[in-house]
Amino acid sequence: MANNQIFAKGVKMDAHFSGTAFVNFLIPDMNRVYNCQVYDVLFEAGCRNDWHSHPGGQFLLCTHGIGYYQEKGKSARRLTKGDVVEIPPDVVHWHGAAPDSAFSHIGISPNTQKGPVEWLGEVNDDEYFNATKAQTK
Amino acid sequence: MANNQIFAKGVKMDAHFSGTAFVNFLIPDMNRVYNCQVYDVLFEAGCRNDWHSHPGGQFLLCTHGIGYYQEKGKSARRLTKGDVVEIPPDVVHWHGAAPDSAFSHIGISPNTQKGPVEWLGEVNDDEYFNATKAQTK
Repeated sequence: MANNQIFAKGVKMDAHFSGTAFVNFLIPDMNRVYNCQVYDVLFEAGCRNDWHSHPGGQFLLCTHGIGYYQEKGKSARRLTKGDVVEIPPDVVHWHGAAPDSAFSHIGISPNTQKGPVEWLGEVNDDEYFNATKAQTK
Repeated sequence: MANNQIFAKGVKMDAHFSGTAFVNFLIPDMNRVYNCQVYDVLFEAGCRNDWHSHPGGQFLLCTHGIGYYQEKGKSARRLTKGDVVEIPPDVVHWHGAAPDSAFSHIGISPNTQKGPVEWLGEVNDDEYFNATKAQTK
């Protein structure tokens, strides 16, 4: 674990990501005591997750590197350490690393009693290139 | 803001803390969209909050320095960067810095629809000394 990471590297994801990502479930809430899950995600450079939405919304707390967040139909937002992203329920979006930098964020899924994440297909190379090109020159 | 802090220093607290603490509300959830609040807390050395409990539970993600967490009637747990504390609903507890080190954690309050934090009186000097003495020699 690099010294600038807070949490241990998690498990390598095998679905719903383009590229290599690791997820460490900090609060899995398997017994649904809290209606809330907390996890740390490390995206390697160029990695992003698929388009998706959460019935209960989601928060991202950016802790390391450079990343992007994009809502469907909007310009992407560039993210660095200390940025906070508030994602309302059912808003279709993706998040991930910059093409040339790894990226870590803590993710928080509140209101999980409203249902699980809905995955909506990959962010293809054109979409990713267009989202990140203006800010990575 | 020190380089090893993730978030900007928040507002100085004037109640429910012994000592000096700053809270930055990252997700205040004023409109109760998420039933979840997220905040960053910086405790100066020796500072701790009052005994309290949360009807919906609470999570702490430790990011900097050395701190302690104690549940009523139990030994205190020493905390450092990367530690995660899961606090079940209605468990009476306090958290704060070590006597000789500042401490920062992200706090997450899920299930806020179940009600607000209940404050239960200060952690007095004897309680704090006894909780932290064994591990600060």
